[in-house]
Amino acid sequence: MTLELERRLLNELNQVRLIDPHSHINPHAAASKTLADILGYHYYTELAHSAGLARERIEEPGLDPKEKVARIVPSLRDIENTVQYNWLIGLCRAFFHFDGETITEANWEKLYDDALAVLSSPGWENRVLDQSGLDAIFLTNDFDDPLAGFDTSRYIPCLRTDDLVFHLTKSETRTRLAVATNVDVGSPADFERALGVLFGHFVAAGARACAISLPPEFEATPVGPATAGKLLTAIAKGTELGLDERNILAQYVFWKLAEKCAELRLPFDLMIGVNRRVYEAGVYQGQDLFDSRCSLIQYRRLFNAFPQVTFPISVLAHGMNQDLVSYSWIFPNVVTNGHWWYSNTPAYIELDCRTRLTAVPQTKQIGYYSDMYKLEFALPKFAMYRQVLARVLAQDFVVERNWSEDRALALGKLVLRGNVERVFPPRA
Amino acid sequence: MTLELERRLLNELNQVRLIDPHSHINPHAAASKTLADILGYHYYTELAHSAGLARERIEEPGLDPKEKVARIVPSLRDIENTVQYNWLIGLCRAFFHFDGETITEANWEKLYDDALAVLSSPGWENRVLDQSGLDAIFLTNDFDDPLAGFDTSRYIPCLRTDDLVFHLTKSETRTRLAVATNVDVGSPADFERALGVLFGHFVAAGARACAISLPPEFEATPVGPATAGKLLTAIAKGTELGLDERNILAQYVFWKLAEKCAELRLPFDLMIGVNRRVYEAGVYQGQDLFDSRCSLIQYRRLFNAFPQVTFPISVLAHGMNQDLVSYSWIFPNVVTNGHWWYSNTPAYIELDCRTRLTAVPQTKQIGYYSDMYKLEFALPKFAMYRQVLARVLAQDFVVERNWSEDRALALGKLVLRGNVERVFPPRA
Amino acid sequence: MTLELERRLLNELNQVRLIDPHSHINPHAAASKTLADILGYHYYTELAHSAGLARERIEEPGLDPKEKVARIVPSLRDIENTVQYNWLIGLCRAFFHFDGETITEANWEKLYDDALAVLSSPGWENRVLDQSGLDAIFLTNDFDDPLAGFDTSRYIPCLRTDDLVFHLTKSETRTRLAVATNVDVGSPADFERALGVLFGHFVAAGARACAISLPPEFEATPVGPATAGKLLTAIAKGTELGLDERNILAQYVFWKLAEKCAELRLPFDLMIGVNRRVYEAGVYQGQDLFDSRCSLIQYRRLFNAFPQVTFPISVLAHGMNQDLVSYSWIFPNVVTNGHWWYSNTPAYIELDCRTRLTAVPQTKQIGYYSDMYKLEFALPKFAMYRQVLARVLAQDFVVERNWSEDRALALGKLVLRGNVERVFPPRA
Repeated sequence: MTLELERRLLNELNQVRLIDPHSHINPHAAASKTLADILGYHYYTELAHSAGLARERIEEPGLDPKEKVARIVPSLRDIENTVQYNWLIGLCRAFFHFDGETITEANWEKLYDDALAVLSSPGWENRVLDQSGLDAIFLTNDFDDPLAGFDTSRYIPCLRTDDLVFHLTKSETRTRLAVATNVDVGSPADFERALGVLFGHFVAAGARACAISLPPEFEATPVGPATAGKLLTAIAKGTELGLDERNILAQYVFWKLAEKCAELRLPFDLMIGVNRRVYEAGVYQGQDLFDSRCSLIQYRRLFNAFPQVTFPISVLAHGMNQDLVSYSWIFPNVVTNGHWWYSNTPAYIELDCRTRLTAVPQTKQIGYYSDMYKLEFALPKFAMYRQVLARVLAQDFVVERNWSEDRALALGKLVLRGNVERVFPPRA
Repeated sequence: MTLELERRLLNELNQVRLIDPHSHINPHAAASKTLADILGYHYYTELAHSAGLARERIEEPGLDPKEKVARIVPSLRDIENTVQYNWLIGLCRAFFHFDGETITEANWEKLYDDALAVLSSPGWENRVLDQSGLDAIFLTNDFDDPLAGFDTSRYIPCLRTDDLVFHLTKSETRTRLAVATNVDVGSPADFERALGVLFGHFVAAGARACAISLPPEFEATPVGPATAGKLLTAIAKGTELGLDERNILAQYVFWKLAEKCAELRLPFDLMIGVNRRVYEAGVYQGQDLFDSRCSLIQYRRLFNAFPQVTFPISVLAHGMNQDLVSYSWIFPNVVTNGHWWYSNTPAYIELDCRTRLTAVPQTKQIGYYSDMYKLEFALPKFAMYRQVLARVLAQDFVVERNWSEDRALALGKLVLRGNVERVFPPRA
Repeated sequence: MTLELERRLLNELNQVRLIDPHSHINPHAAASKTLADILGYHYYTELAHSAGLARERIEEPGLDPKEKVARIVPSLRDIENTVQYNWLIGLCRAFFHFDGETITEANWEKLYDDALAVLSSPGWENRVLDQSGLDAIFLTNDFDDPLAGFDTSRYIPCLRTDDLVFHLTKSETRTRLAVATNVDVGSPADFERALGVLFGHFVAAGARACAISLPPEFEATPVGPATAGKLLTAIAKGTELGLDERNILAQYVFWKLAEKCAELRLPFDLMIGVNRRVYEAGVYQGQDLFDSRCSLIQYRRLFNAFPQVTFPISVLAHGMNQDLVSYSWIFPNVVTNGHWWYSNTPAYIELDCRTRLTAVPQTKQIGYYSDMYKLEFALPKFAMYRQVLARVLAQDFVVERNWSEDRALALGKLVLRGNVERVFPPRA
């Protein structure tokens, strides 16, 4: 009975067209070209590697796409249980006429060829968007991205700022900044001017968010111009900063970004809790982990100082979800944002979805984003979320609270689509 | 089938009369006077504010109650999904003849008037207690509360000690202490004498518990009289203490309270994990949050030093529930106590209830308290808990373990009522 | 419908014969002799003590077994709700012809006598193994265990190293090491030689794992020979080490153990997060707890430095399960291992099982171990796990993902049995 109800709700949720509020899509090569683009997604390479496949086999320079797939396929057997594998099967069935249960050494070549035919057919990018119900997709753009040559109403720019905050000490980053802004940064005033150029460029190109990922120990706090000035002067001279100094510089840049977001009315996406390069011998993008000892209390100054900035927040560790629920319930400018990475599996999503839907104002919850690198993944990832959402709406609202199905669906549609438009409005 | 079973169990649990072991009821004004008292509960003002309503609109001095409700009602739409809103609808239906699904700009005035008629009718306080099945309610009394003018068998005094532990540095607190005890504290001996007067006063008035809320970083440890003496002398002279000194003073006072609890055989309720005033621009009582990085290991010295004191413990962060389960399972003097504040939503309660019921001796679990400020909230809050409890008893005991329904109900009744009497016995 | 499915799956899982990859069985006295051995398991003594039974009543020297049971039985009433009590009833029903619902002052003597008849009957050890479906059981052997006088194919040795890492400062430990290895440790070279003797002895006796339990604050890091040399010299002279020095010595020994595991291709079981002797007045083995503030990031150097060593990891705090899931998903040498102690209750197992089965390669998960001290406990403990596993397979795989029952069962059998053989292979 409840299963029937869940299916009815899911069927309705499946009709909702989407704006995907966070992805890593390259708008110049948004769709996959071969199955190697799909199996090259870090979830498959890192899980195959974790199950025993050598990194060198996967990342051999100049590897032919078909050979790459051939090397990964035998390891898929070991990860058939994972939800990530389920995404893979889901998209192969939806897009590539695949009807098997598993991808094996016996059937992968046909799948590869079928996929190739589909992926190389004219208009595939439009068709995958249409079949996935996607109206628009937020990008993750480097600060010096020219943002040219693509349709910014379909692929919405988003200023990603990790490099500025955590790698301004690298001369490469400063050179990129100088090239992008025509400002050679030697002082806080210069830096603010450079930021002004960057933000102006992004806003002019239709950007609707600034974004950053942050390590677990980061604490947001303002840094005075005198301190910042010394550090900016030092790095301009090529002086190596100590760890503490680098942290203070990062805090300075971060705070300045928040000020710019306030000035230009841009939401500032915070993705909190990642430790980079924990497993240095891991595959590309399969090296990062986290420290669960992290709390949103580390952002209290920020939330208090910028009431006019909306902070859509993702947390990497499930243990921080209650922080997120509670801070969103209290702070008007904190918004829950999707289910990130290691917390993006059904059991964690279900708990997190349930606790958010019952305690955070319904207008302050962005249900899901794909985080994808290639368009084909939106469909199975959103399908996973929709299934969980349907279950939570069925059990916690229709069964437990006696809500009508229509009312539950309205809540579902709000978190799935409506709030993306509300939190990230197009600029007038 | 399981749903039917849950309903049968819930129906039985609904017959259990209650002693509410923790509330903020003012015994001189226990029931609400208008709907503004109900919508003025911080859950509604903070959620409405979080959803966008300006604090100034809510807290305008001299605001007429009806106008206050008129201002909050439009924001209720944004929080209809929350369980707190569900409490509101539940109590309006139970007490005010409300039969709508939601409270809107179209129907709120009639509700306001209907509520007013009920709330101002003679004998309402008795009726709401009776309809809610409440036999008695624990209070939260300031240390200098005269405890006079109310029926202490219905409204049971409880000595709340946050001010003593964390605000003894304020001259206002010391003045209140001097007035209440006739002791001018300048030394540890004075302080212990003053505490003796306070505890004597409370015990004479029928108090059944001492209570305190504690910040996440607090570590319970004894402080010697020499150290304490210096600090007490310093504050008596008006010397400003440093942060470390204030912490040590707090530890000293806290430990002395535990000693008094031991001497007078009072349980000491610890409510662990709150950070006060994190969102300083928030509405009244809507400014506090927490840091999930907290562990009961910080209380090991206390639990070891006072085997004769019962510590009913509430934890603010769901992540600490396993600490609580495990410490209650090992320490005879640690008892699980309710579901507090940010952990008082169904998804967290269900997990916490389930893990407690399967691992902590059944005699050491206090299922729930209302934490309410006005009597009307006991009914919907306990209803939420009873619904979760019925589900856990059904699934984990009747279905999984093949318990009879009667046996499961006996367990339910024990945590709902019996253990309150066992843990907080009336004094002979 | 789902319940029927769960039962079918459970029925099949019940047919799987087991290798128990972690226990505290004494191979010279593996089975219980009387009901006192069973009720003497720390779960019962600590829960009875927690519920009010004095330690002195339980641990009185020279206490007759029947009298011990007589003293514990009245306290069982208070812990009937616990899952540990459920294990007790389960094994009494399975082995001792018990058909009651509870053990009471009225029926315990008959149970005691019935148990005695069974336990003292010839061949009981073989029968309990057979009835429990146990093919082999891993032990927990002191480093100086002679490993003689028992069948090491049935009782598989495992080198437990807590004493070496955390108690080498004690002269008793060093004497035991000298006796066991014929090496008097005064330098790093000596110590490595002594370890070589120990590991050689264990491997020759068929050991398949090295194991250790670790406190929450432990951080794995290499320590240079100069530093280690100073510390080893100091303790050889009887110099008392400071806390920091003791920590560094522990880090040194731990790292050397990992090196030996690498050399001899032994998996290294890490059981992470226990604080010893938190409740010093507690019953035997009922004194330890934990600090939930712990992260696998503390082991990043270890996992990176020893890619050739498999680390089956158990975490004490449920809050660390996501660390374990994520580190196992990324690091090829990290494997999830069972559900330990305070996380070994159904609600935690279910969440942990669900999150592991959907995100960690299926070949890298060891479902369960008994951790038992007496053979009779394998049956009810594995029964608890099998019930949870059947539910997760039914809901998350058969219902949610449309897997066939056979496919779900193959996954279940892999984590229940197959992976034990894969992760801990017998040495050629």
